Amino acid sequence: MSIKEIATSLEDKMVETRRYMHMHPEVSFKEEKTYEFILDKLKQYDGLKIRENVGKNNETTGKGLFATFGEGHPHIAFRADFDALPIVDQKDVPYKSQNEGVMHACGHDGHTSTLIALVDAVSHNKDKLKGSVSFIFQFGEETAPGGAKFMIEDGILEDVDKVYGQHYWSQFPTHEIRTRKGELISSPDTFKVKIKGRGGHAAHPGNNIDAILIAAEMITSLQTAVARQIAPLENAVVTIGKISAGNSFNVMPDVVEFEGTVRTFKPEIKQKIKEIFELEVEYTAKKRGAIGMLNYIEGYPAVVNLDREAEVVEEAAKALGLEFVEAKPSMIGEDFSMYIQDKPGAFFYTGSGSEGKNSTFAHHHEKFDLDEDAMKTALQMFMKILEIEEVVTWG
Amino acid sequence: MSIKEIATSLEDKMVETRRYMHMHPEVSFKEEKTYEFILDKLKQYDGLKIRENVGKNNETTGKGLFATFGEGHPHIAFRADFDALPIVDQKDVPYKSQNEGVMHACGHDGHTSTLIALVDAVSHNKDKLKGSVSFIFQFGEETAPGGAKFMIEDGILEDVDKVYGQHYWSQFPTHEIRTRKGELISSPDTFKVKIKGRGGHAAHPGNNIDAILIAAEMITSLQTAVARQIAPLENAVVTIGKISAGNSFNVMPDVVEFEGTVRTFKPEIKQKIKEIFELEVEYTAKKRGAIGMLNYIEGYPAVVNLDREAEVVEEAAKALGLEFVEAKPSMIGEDFSMYIQDKPGAFFYTGSGSEGKNSTFAHHHEKFDLDEDAMKTALQMFMKILEIEEVVTWG
Amino acid sequence: MSIKEIATSLEDKMVETRRYMHMHPEVSFKEEKTYEFILDKLKQYDGLKIRENVGKNNETTGKGLFATFGEGHPHIAFRADFDALPIVDQKDVPYKSQNEGVMHACGHDGHTSTLIALVDAVSHNKDKLKGSVSFIFQFGEETAPGGAKFMIEDGILEDVDKVYGQHYWSQFPTHEIRTRKGELISSPDTFKVKIKGRGGHAAHPGNNIDAILIAAEMITSLQTAVARQIAPLENAVVTIGKISAGNSFNVMPDVVEFEGTVRTFKPEIKQKIKEIFELEVEYTAKKRGAIGMLNYIEGYPAVVNLDREAEVVEEAAKALGLEFVEAKPSMIGEDFSMYIQDKPGAFFYTGSGSEGKNSTFAHHHEKFDLDEDAMKTALQMFMKILEIEEVVTWG
Amino acid sequence: MSIKEIATSLEDKMVETRRYMHMHPEVSFKEEKTYEFILDKLKQYDGLKIRENVGKNNETTGKGLFATFGEGHPHIAFRADFDALPIVDQKDVPYKSQNEGVMHACGHDGHTSTLIALVDAVSHNKDKLKGSVSFIFQFGEETAPGGAKFMIEDGILEDVDKVYGQHYWSQFPTHEIRTRKGELISSPDTFKVKIKGRGGHAAHPGNNIDAILIAAEMITSLQTAVARQIAPLENAVVTIGKISAGNSFNVMPDVVEFEGTVRTFKPEIKQKIKEIFELEVEYTAKKRGAIGMLNYIEGYPAVVNLDREAEVVEEAAKALGLEFVEAKPSMIGEDFSMYIQDKPGAFFYTGSGSEGKNSTFAHHHEKFDLDEDAMKTALQMFMKILEIEEVVTWG
Repeated sequence: MSIKEIATSLEDKMVETRRYMHMHPEVSFKEEKTYEFILDKLKQYDGLKIRENVGKNNETTGKGLFATFGEGHPHIAFRADFDALPIVDQKDVPYKSQNEGVMHACGHDGHTSTLIALVDAVSHNKDKLKGSVSFIFQFGEETAPGGAKFMIEDGILEDVDKVYGQHYWSQFPTHEIRTRKGELISSPDTFKVKIKGRGGHAAHPGNNIDAILIAAEMITSLQTAVARQIAPLENAVVTIGKISAGNSFNVMPDVVEFEGTVRTFKPEIKQKIKEIFELEVEYTAKKRGAIGMLNYIEGYPAVVNLDREAEVVEEAAKALGLEFVEAKPSMIGEDFSMYIQDKPGAFFYTGSGSEGKNSTFAHHHEKFDLDEDAMKTALQMFMKILEIEEVVTWG
Repeated sequence: MSIKEIATSLEDKMVETRRYMHMHPEVSFKEEKTYEFILDKLKQYDGLKIRENVGKNNETTGKGLFATFGEGHPHIAFRADFDALPIVDQKDVPYKSQNEGVMHACGHDGHTSTLIALVDAVSHNKDKLKGSVSFIFQFGEETAPGGAKFMIEDGILEDVDKVYGQHYWSQFPTHEIRTRKGELISSPDTFKVKIKGRGGHAAHPGNNIDAILIAAEMITSLQTAVARQIAPLENAVVTIGKISAGNSFNVMPDVVEFEGTVRTFKPEIKQKIKEIFELEVEYTAKKRGAIGMLNYIEGYPAVVNLDREAEVVEEAAKALGLEFVEAKPSMIGEDFSMYIQDKPGAFFYTGSGSEGKNSTFAHHHEKFDLDEDAMKTALQMFMKILEIEEVVTWG
Repeated sequence: MSIKEIATSLEDKMVETRRYMHMHPEVSFKEEKTYEFILDKLKQYDGLKIRENVGKNNETTGKGLFATFGEGHPHIAFRADFDALPIVDQKDVPYKSQNEGVMHACGHDGHTSTLIALVDAVSHNKDKLKGSVSFIFQFGEETAPGGAKFMIEDGILEDVDKVYGQHYWSQFPTHEIRTRKGELISSPDTFKVKIKGRGGHAAHPGNNIDAILIAAEMITSLQTAVARQIAPLENAVVTIGKISAGNSFNVMPDVVEFEGTVRTFKPEIKQKIKEIFELEVEYTAKKRGAIGMLNYIEGYPAVVNLDREAEVVEEAAKALGLEFVEAKPSMIGEDFSMYIQDKPGAFFYTGSGSEGKNSTFAHHHEKFDLDEDAMKTALQMFMKILEIEEVVTWG
Repeated sequence: MSIKEIATSLEDKMVETRRYMHMHPEVSFKEEKTYEFILDKLKQYDGLKIRENVGKNNETTGKGLFATFGEGHPHIAFRADFDALPIVDQKDVPYKSQNEGVMHACGHDGHTSTLIALVDAVSHNKDKLKGSVSFIFQFGEETAPGGAKFMIEDGILEDVDKVYGQHYWSQFPTHEIRTRKGELISSPDTFKVKIKGRGGHAAHPGNNIDAILIAAEMITSLQTAVARQIAPLENAVVTIGKISAGNSFNVMPDVVEFEGTVRTFKPEIKQKIKEIFELEVEYTAKKRGAIGMLNYIEGYPAVVNLDREAEVVEEAAKALGLEFVEAKPSMIGEDFSMYIQDKPGAFFYTGSGSEGKNSTFAHHHEKFDLDEDAMKTALQMFMKILEIEEVVTWG
């Protein structure tokens, strides 16, 4: 059977698996039943070596799974995440979430279902493998520090040569593949700033230290720093999303707090911005006699595709007759970055937006849904990549 | 009897009246029983002409009282206010408030009690009056637009030549009198600013309008305007007491709101600051494509004592052997200003702070109390002023 | 003779002396011929004890004169300064400056001429003195650190009880006297700020440090500090008068310089502002990786009149039938402050502005002139003060 | 002969031509003798159709030349500019500028010399042309609005299919070729801002309008606008290179002026920044009662290479065995952009920096020189491009 025929034969199973998961979502780091569900599926395949409880350590219960067919090299791994979000499902469909307040609103159910189908496809060709294929089922992608870190620390990549991953994307039409060489997805940091001034009567500023003014100066100054201290050809964003201070119009408050996010692509730019924050918060407070406190939390690294592996994705898409579009760098975040900091690899988007199927709502929207046809596309992409990487010849 | 002897003879009555009022406080514009209580007291004096329900109009129920002894001129009026505050009385005294959640936490009970005692004192000398003496019992001082406005609009000052008033003050020691010529108490305005930008994903500032940044620029700019556009010899304060925007670190909010207070002494400075606000809020929003909305609420005018009447207060204090201190201008607010915008007059502070009597808590504090000795002092001050103004000779 | 008659008799001499000085002006710290001229005049008076070269030390040539009639106390001193300015005299009068580029454009010639006339007046009454009278002829008032400091350090005030001084003022009409208790004339400091960033191509801000932006942030921030960190009832001004940086639109410069002036009345406010500058310049530069350099030069202290001596001035003016106006605090500078930091005293303005006599040009204007009638007024003021201070009875 | 052999045979001529031009530089729009020199050279070639005085119109004397070999299509044009700069040549070489104060400090002499050599090379193959080749000799590249505009308006591109051009670059090593698809060179605008406040005594800010503060607020605000109103993935720079105001520390000046440059790649981003300037300058001045005046001068459009033609450059470089490096977008300016706004084409850099030949000084430096070996490289590039474009087969 051709790649297409195999994918078509697995279509119903993928839909069934995905819908079951959609009805039984679990939030990040709490994916217990999901883990059992996937594990049960994997156990049905003879010859599949399964590592259970991957990523378990003092910090996490470790609900990752790592399964491998074959031996030796090339050794290609594919990754799917399986956590859901604390969102109330507002869709009116038979497979609507049955866990009130939890929802697969980002498509990870589809990622996992597709990867299980790949296990199936490879299982029928396991004797013809020229190397090995691994399947990474990852917990906790939505919440930093993310499951990828723990699974890698547990050693899953030691024997692996390359890692590929994909994300369904509702803003691109179904059957479209997007990726790019280099910077694909930004690194999202968060920060909280607290300024401790000295409150008092609004009419006696000379006795007080006006923390609101200090915050205003910091907010302005941080933006000028982005404009001036970061090279214009680097992409960096600093946004304050929230600020609050005071209870009354006529009392100067003691404390102001504001928080926000930083998006960068390069570690050195991230470090420069972090340093800008440290200096800004310390000195702008200090010069007024206030105390500035910064809590800067580094998020996932940026997803930076390796050139050759991005080309493999493009070649696969074109060979399959899919629409290939060069992606623009995106300012979201994704801990797939961890895998390709360690080993070569690439991440790509599989379009899943179809007006007719109500699948164009933004990710994390309470009506988010997947055009399930996209799963057949992604499965074929994975299969074609395995062929280009010369691990298997289908048919 | 000398002034002092008369005051001493009225001491017990003043304490009794004040404590009764302290136990039965009513908030501004709701002073119904208090009104009846004062009216009953006044009706006991023969020859006292009483105007009831002064200040009644479409906007208010008009619970002011205006009472007069004598005829002709000079015609000197004294004012006391009688409203309380929405504060829970936390004192442990027999005369503690019996209206849960309402409290005479600013000493207006003492003001009224003292003025009733003055009625009594004058009643025994009513035949010797060389002119007339009026007693203004005012409702609603604590809440703008204040009762003074309505009572004056009702015509009480038409025949009056001068108006005096006083406030007990817990931060000055008992037996101390303070006032100054000219600017005594500031005019307190309030403002609310709302900036409507365009919210969106924190990572895409180019598509959004960052209202938090606009607020930061306004807050900074308003302070530079105070420093640069107001003459340094004028006293003006702008303070932002409260700011809030946003719910999440990674979503840029649509709207920011901040509010605060402005304190000035001169109408032209107030107008200039108001204009600064109007221009700042309009243009700084507009230049970024946002909408700035300003709600600027003018408070009471500043209390600006007339020179001669401030001298009368000083002379009275010195003649009575009291400690006289030149007051510094204060940044609070007081609608006594209304009376002396219309007729000459002066306002002064009577110290009422005594450590031994637990009467040094700040005004509006939940444990505020009065050193009742101060009432004898204020009563003598009023009597002496009447003598200096040549309306009556005591004894 | 009455005070007025004596003053009238000295009128011609005062005019002659003043005009001679006006024709032969010398700039601050270079007043050699002026010194000889005054010394010659003083030597004509029998019984006048003259100290020459007062204020001479390592830093200055010391051209002050201190002369005394009488012995014992009360001992009242009067001060006149005698330096001119580096301004080209543009008046068309017979007594126009004969030293090209130097001009008595502030009226110090009149101050000195009047004080010499007072020597003359006292000389005729020297036997009737109940104490002593001293005459301080001061060099170098226009240029910090000023001559007063050096003369006081030379001990002239040791025996003195009180010091009075006056300044002609072209913006007030002739025959008007102005002064006030307390803060009369501000203390004028100057500052220069230099910011060393890192210049470079305008298109590569990330490699450079933008000193112009840092200057902009400092300038804004200094004004917010004035508005917020100084009590609104204190009078303080910070003004940047000059800024310059860069030679080309497309090269980012290395260095920005700006300079300006600070005006305050109280030493603690001055110190607070100085500290604000130190913190601002250090930290705002540092947080961007630049170097901020501050040169803060403290000027003369503020002239703060003693209450009693200000009353003496007012009494003198009223006794002489002159118009007395309470002065507003002024933001200029005057080293008379030095004398009354040491001994009680007061400074006042004698109006000298008369449209008909072309004497209403601002001080330091190239057409500045004096209504010489004012000298008769100031002379009488000095004489009356001596009478009130009970040192002499005229007539 | 091979491309390389032809280029080698023309080497001496190129050097001679370049050195002659180097000794006789003329500034932009004044290139009279240079024009005659090039024209004389061109007239030596039989069959070369020459259009003289191209670009002549009311605004310019029109000293462009457009020469063509062959007929029909494909029709490929190459462009060289020939103007020099008002810089004093500080090199110590035999071919140093003989026009004091004018210098070929940007390598345009090399551009022209190379293009003349291309004319020669094509002339020997003119009978074998499968289309036509044109040679654009452009005046006035260094000074906006630039000669390209006028020459295009004169119709030279009407029959042309594609335009290629190159620039020697001293910061890249000789024999290296750099270009990229899309945005290669930014569009450089300039701006001048003048703020008219109201000057006056530094001690009386309330009477004045502080233009220096307004400038500070604008400078800060413009940078925050770049950071917030332009998408982070767009490249934009705003730099203020120069500011000046005031003459004295104690006088507030009337006027501040500052100027700088804006660099963008996309017309819509340029328009957005221009609009930001218009709003900023108008409203920030207006809200303080000042007048803001903006002079915004749009520079050349950005050079945006067409994808296919950039690939042709890369193919040519690789076929010639040259080092090819993908260029980074650069923030300089170049009016070659005009040609490829009209017709497809690409621009590339030919490295010309060689330490041993003192040719690594920055462009516009007073010691700038060219490694003349680079001319052989660029000539071969042009020849190879003609081959790839199938206009000629060399040999």
